[in-house]
Amino acid sequence: MKRTASAHWKGDIKNGKGEISTQSTTLKETQYSCKSRFEDGVGTNPEELLGASHAGCFTMAVSAALTKAGYPAGDLTTNATVDYDMKESKIAGITLNLNASLIEGLSADQFKLIATEAKETCPISKALASVSILLNVNYNS
Amino acid sequence: MKRTASAHWKGDIKNGKGEISTQSTTLKETQYSCKSRFEDGVGTNPEELLGASHAGCFTMAVSAALTKAGYPAGDLTTNATVDYDMKESKIAGITLNLNASLIEGLSADQFKLIATEAKETCPISKALASVSILLNVNYNS
Repeated sequence: MKRTASAHWKGDIKNGKGEISTQSTTLKETQYSCKSRFEDGVGTNPEELLGASHAGCFTMAVSAALTKAGYPAGDLTTNATVDYDMKESKIAGITLNLNASLIEGLSADQFKLIATEAKETCPISKALASVSILLNVNYNS
Repeated sequence: MKRTASAHWKGDIKNGKGEISTQSTTLKETQYSCKSRFEDGVGTNPEELLGASHAGCFTMAVSAALTKAGYPAGDLTTNATVDYDMKESKIAGITLNLNASLIEGLSADQFKLIATEAKETCPISKALASVSILLNVNYNS
């Protein structure tokens, strides 16, 4: 299965600017620039999009694992924080904070095991194997 | 520097659905589901968001490298295709197709060298070190 996205950039790095689009048109020539990436300009940036991809994939993977184990998920909410190291120009790490509503018959230990396995095996986590990924679970919120 | 995004999911994997948001509000409770991910449902999916992140980062990195080399970029457009292996539940590879307008004084070989280095060193490429990334350059479009 193939999914596509595109980016356009015009001009030098400091004064230039660009737009990002996705196949589904969820992003449609969405602005980005040095300001939106490294300061507080209007628009998106690659780091928050990576966080969105990872949070989306991981949360769905937790639901899939719960379904497989016979426990339909209640509410699952994941906040992803992508830590960008400006000095080294690299992603220093990603923290996933998962808040989950209680599921009858499933202990906190069992839930944590399922969530940890989803963190290890979800497709985006696997693609990010070279990045340190930290998972915090709050099961009961 | 930290950038954040979040995802919410409710229900089992097949019938459940979710929403994805980003810090900049570029994504604001944008729908996603099994259908939008693996079929043709309305909404986004983690794979196109990964492609958007990578295309955005790489294209900006090419502009930065051209700026450093003394050549302000004209138009740079990158189409990213994320190949998802349904059987293995993993990202099988990413193809970046870069179309760039001619820059006076910069040969095709020089341009390709700069683009290839940007592909190797941009932060999102580095985070995706475990994924096969193919770059095609069309310099003259």
